[in-house]
Amino acid sequence: MEISARNGLKGKVDDVKLGEVMASIKIAVEEPGIITAIITKESAEDLDLKEGDEVKAIIKSTEIMVAK
Amino acid sequence: MEISARNGLKGKVDDVKLGEVMASIKIAVEEPGIITAIITKESAEDLDLKEGDEVKAIIKSTEIMVAK
Amino acid sequence: MEISARNGLKGKVDDVKLGEVMASIKIAVEEPGIITAIITKESAEDLDLKEGDEVKAIIKSTEIMVAK
Amino acid sequence: MEISARNGLKGKVDDVKLGEVMASIKIAVEEPGIITAIITKESAEDLDLKEGDEVKAIIKSTEIMVAK
Amino acid sequence: MEISARNGLKGKVDDVKLGEVMASIKIAVEEPGIITAIITKESAEDLDLKEGDEVKAIIKSTEIMVAK
Amino acid sequence: MEISARNGLKGKVDDVKLGEVMASIKIAVEEPGIITAIITKESAEDLDLKEGDEVKAIIKSTEIMVAK
Repeated sequence: MEISARNGLKGKVDDVKLGEVMASIKIAVEEPGIITAIITKESAEDLDLKEGDEVKAIIKSTEIMVAK
Repeated sequence: MEISARNGLKGKVDDVKLGEVMASIKIAVEEPGIITAIITKESAEDLDLKEGDEVKAIIKSTEIMVAK
Repeated sequence: MEISARNGLKGKVDDVKLGEVMASIKIAVEEPGIITAIITKESAEDLDLKEGDEVKAIIKSTEIMVAK
Repeated sequence: MEISARNGLKGKVDDVKLGEVMASIKIAVEEPGIITAIITKESAEDLDLKEGDEVKAIIKSTEIMVAK
Repeated sequence: MEISARNGLKGKVDDVKLGEVMASIKIAVEEPGIITAIITKESAEDLDLKEGDEVKAIIKSTEIMVAK
Repeated sequence: MEISARNGLKGKVDDVKLGEVMASIKIAVEEPGIITAIITKESAEDLDLKEGDEVKAIIKSTEIMVAK
């Protein structure tokens, strides 16, 4: 099956920490490529985003899934 | 201010598409580095995640913010 | 009060596991009905989604709330 | 590849609505089964969740992915 | 029904903008009160968060629901 | 750097609870101001949202980041 999530970053597991309910997985990303961010039009205009701008993609850890 | 979100992927804006309410931003990630994923302990055990495993970090576009 | 979240799946609590900060709740869904997924137009076109297609709705556990 | 997301609800596409950037996909869920919700321990205790309780799993549409 | 989501900020609708698929709702919050953020232990320690610290709660718009 | 997330609520840390993997941070919001919620057009129409409506912004704790 192919999934609608646009972003798949290939890498190697760097560390696994298990809690009682949650787990923290560190991944060393090797082949980043292109990622897609969906933000509000208002934010895109406020930040005046244009091709070539140096930016950072910010992602909360609870929003990242792992496939193996 | 420093933000609690663990993941910041540096890159260049590749494309900006504005809709009426939302906007789609393509980012060519240049310096991936280490990312942190928070999943359930159950998933980590089911996938038998261990250091060195080849994996993919999967992220829905609506969960990615942009900083400039 | 009525909430904007489009998806409410009725069911019975199957298991409750409490950690120090988080809790994992298993729910046996009884009356699924229709759910709404918001994805990017690009994904919908890539997956060539059409009425009648057999699909799977994929949801990360941290994104599910419980009402009682 | 197997994905860490715990919840996969099988069903049929009921409707596809494309906007400029986003798309709304209606899915008639056929085989619900067991879903896992991760909430705070505090919420689980406040709601006094116990096995057998009648509940609703509430999910914002922007958090649902589609696999085909 | 009571919902597990910990945060409910009372206020008045300030603006409603409808797109084809999504809508942007501005809310003037009147009674903020206490909100709960769940972050990684690692972030809490990195930011050295302590009672009394001046902070900002940062929330992506796609993660906010509206109840009326 | 400025971040695309539309919502920043200023306040003071009220409590910090550390688990093994996650942490719960209580914040007493002092200067709420205007917040932006992105919901489906369908929800906005179903709830018949209009300027001046008394509403509640509902946010799951796992979706709130902290900046210091």
